[in-house]
Amino acid sequence: MKAVIITIGDEILIGQTVDTNAAWLGKMFNQRGITVEKTISIRDDEHAIHQALDESFKIANVVLMTGGLGPTADDITKESLCSYFNTELVLSEKSLQQIKGFVESRGYSVNENNYNQAMLPEACTVISNHIGTAPIMQFEQEGRLLFSMPGVPFEMKYAMEHEVFPRIEERFSFPPVFHQTVMTYGMPEAFLAEKLNDWANQLQDCVKLAYLPSPKGIKIRLSVYDTAISGWKEAVETAVIGLKEEIPELIFSEQEENLENALFHLLKQNNLKLSVAESCTGGLIGSLMTSIPGASEVFEGGVIAYSNNVKQHLLSVSEVVLEEFGAVSEETVREMASQVKNKLHTNCAIAVSGIAGPDGGSEAKPVGTVWIAVALGNQVVARKFQFGSIRWVNTEKAAYSAMHLLYKLIKKEVMNS
Amino acid sequence: MKAVIITIGDEILIGQTVDTNAAWLGKMFNQRGITVEKTISIRDDEHAIHQALDESFKIANVVLMTGGLGPTADDITKESLCSYFNTELVLSEKSLQQIKGFVESRGYSVNENNYNQAMLPEACTVISNHIGTAPIMQFEQEGRLLFSMPGVPFEMKYAMEHEVFPRIEERFSFPPVFHQTVMTYGMPEAFLAEKLNDWANQLQDCVKLAYLPSPKGIKIRLSVYDTAISGWKEAVETAVIGLKEEIPELIFSEQEENLENALFHLLKQNNLKLSVAESCTGGLIGSLMTSIPGASEVFEGGVIAYSNNVKQHLLSVSEVVLEEFGAVSEETVREMASQVKNKLHTNCAIAVSGIAGPDGGSEAKPVGTVWIAVALGNQVVARKFQFGSIRWVNTEKAAYSAMHLLYKLIKKEVMNS
Repeated sequence: MKAVIITIGDEILIGQTVDTNAAWLGKMFNQRGITVEKTISIRDDEHAIHQALDESFKIANVVLMTGGLGPTADDITKESLCSYFNTELVLSEKSLQQIKGFVESRGYSVNENNYNQAMLPEACTVISNHIGTAPIMQFEQEGRLLFSMPGVPFEMKYAMEHEVFPRIEERFSFPPVFHQTVMTYGMPEAFLAEKLNDWANQLQDCVKLAYLPSPKGIKIRLSVYDTAISGWKEAVETAVIGLKEEIPELIFSEQEENLENALFHLLKQNNLKLSVAESCTGGLIGSLMTSIPGASEVFEGGVIAYSNNVKQHLLSVSEVVLEEFGAVSEETVREMASQVKNKLHTNCAIAVSGIAGPDGGSEAKPVGTVWIAVALGNQVVARKFQFGSIRWVNTEKAAYSAMHLLYKLIKKEVMNS
Repeated sequence: MKAVIITIGDEILIGQTVDTNAAWLGKMFNQRGITVEKTISIRDDEHAIHQALDESFKIANVVLMTGGLGPTADDITKESLCSYFNTELVLSEKSLQQIKGFVESRGYSVNENNYNQAMLPEACTVISNHIGTAPIMQFEQEGRLLFSMPGVPFEMKYAMEHEVFPRIEERFSFPPVFHQTVMTYGMPEAFLAEKLNDWANQLQDCVKLAYLPSPKGIKIRLSVYDTAISGWKEAVETAVIGLKEEIPELIFSEQEENLENALFHLLKQNNLKLSVAESCTGGLIGSLMTSIPGASEVFEGGVIAYSNNVKQHLLSVSEVVLEEFGAVSEETVREMASQVKNKLHTNCAIAVSGIAGPDGGSEAKPVGTVWIAVALGNQVVARKFQFGSIRWVNTEKAAYSAMHLLYKLIKKEVMNS
């Protein structure tokens, strides 16, 4: 089962847009056992599109195409598909109705561009785009499938998950690949790999190991590509048990989910409500926690205490503490955590204060210094972190380190109770 | 002058690595007037590499190849180049000395892997890698050039700037390209294009137009690919002036920057301090504003008023208003904006309250309903928005719409004063 990805758009080739669609599609297919043989990025050009299709159909069972479906004149994917498949554009009533509904729900009325978007190649199967105006097209050529999707990432992803992949699954059978992901936080890859060296050497041959690092933690992925081999399930289970013995304090989940999600579930299970007091993270922790549907069950709100004024007047951090120890100090974050917890009547809280950079550092507190406090019941735990010099990395690491610190504190309490 | 980029590596095709090299190379070439016709990503596979080379030499004067040059067994680019160019690996003394110097300067001594890296195809011109151990190779085929570079982004970029591009410039001549980007927010692409139809039809032939949409707004890009034509500068200037007449309320910048950045500069220029009261955005606006270095000059902080309790107790939104009109209402966001502005002693404020979804909607206030208020001095402007059904898209749109509303209000005031 082989696939080729074609991404269309001048903006990709001139480097104005990084092609995250191809990476996302590659990841999705890989996880599901489909090999992506090639990714081709081309300009909005009919000849180039035809050539890419010729190439792709030679090697792939499934061709995924994104981009070039906008309502404007520079987008020519549809026309190019017509000439390639020797068909012509006709009005799709179904699409027009869907586009109409979508546009009108936003308070606009359908215009000529929208009509043009409902003009689709006669030879294709039209698939509705439920969250945008460019329909998805499905073509078939000698048993091979081609899907043309919008280039807007969230529209493409939605279409892939809800419409396109189910159609691929229906048509082809491919050997299932098994991935077991264990999520860790708190140790850089090089050290994690060193610590896990012996464990890794004892893995059975059928289990492949990969470390996937990001500022949000390191995923450890165990993959079995040949699930026809007997005993692979036990091999994976043994590996996971071993891993939990090696690094119990670093693991926050045994499934592919991010830290905010794991924290959300832990809070929910234990009937806890969270509040936050954020200085250098500026609202990022709140933003991450509220990205989860149903966040209101565990998240009350908080204070973005960016300036000292806000720390003092909205959080009642004492002026003496701020003056004596500074905004980036253990004393300050401890007060921030306790105060926000009490003021918002929650049973746990996170507080962060640090120097995100690029400026504002000193010898005693260089850029990347971050103090974090987490409160649970009457306990407050504070810890200092030293990150690097890049602002967004520091902010992200501060947010994730803070959530991880609270996660560990709750886990410990749950185990002890 | 045409180029093709070939990126090699399984990690790209399985989506583990986003191909930023291709985007960087595309941008560099585009800025310098070289058209990238195509980008091809393939696996570490000899046959695939040969095919990609065949394709590329058919259409390009210059082929850039990255990746597959590491010291481990899965990297086979060098061997594939040997078989393609019918040559063999020989020891490059020059490379060996360079690698030795590099490795020893880091306190290691040369090992077998390093020797292997100095084994290079006899038919190529060897170019030193000054910041790594994988040398760069230059091949020539019927007047066309091929450069093979390491995939590590900073090594590739260094090699491009200091070694490869100068060699391309020496060999070929190409006209510079000009891009002018205008950033807009507040109107979907189809309607923007309709509104700008007449303007677009009056563009001179040398000016090419592209719309680049995202949830953060739509970039309008005007490009001149042939700057040898006289009068192109005036043509672009006229186009931008026309654009500003057509959609003055939608434009927030005439250079490539995001909305938070444009708002930051506008606040700074006008000595304004911002506070935020965020319900459904949960801290996202604060997070976006504080992502900018020096944010403390314009951003004071705010309240993440996720629950009604917080709205009432920390922001003093009256219980009567919350009960009578609900949390998602004009009355509530107006109070939120005024209160946070006063409590944090700022001269402007943003307040957002909405139903992000997927649940929590009603007939009167469906998912995607968002009320936004912005305050400046004694003015408060409120507006209702109707977004879609996807939580993160709604949150992002709410944040950007709110920043845009404040941006417009400040602009208007500045113009009037």
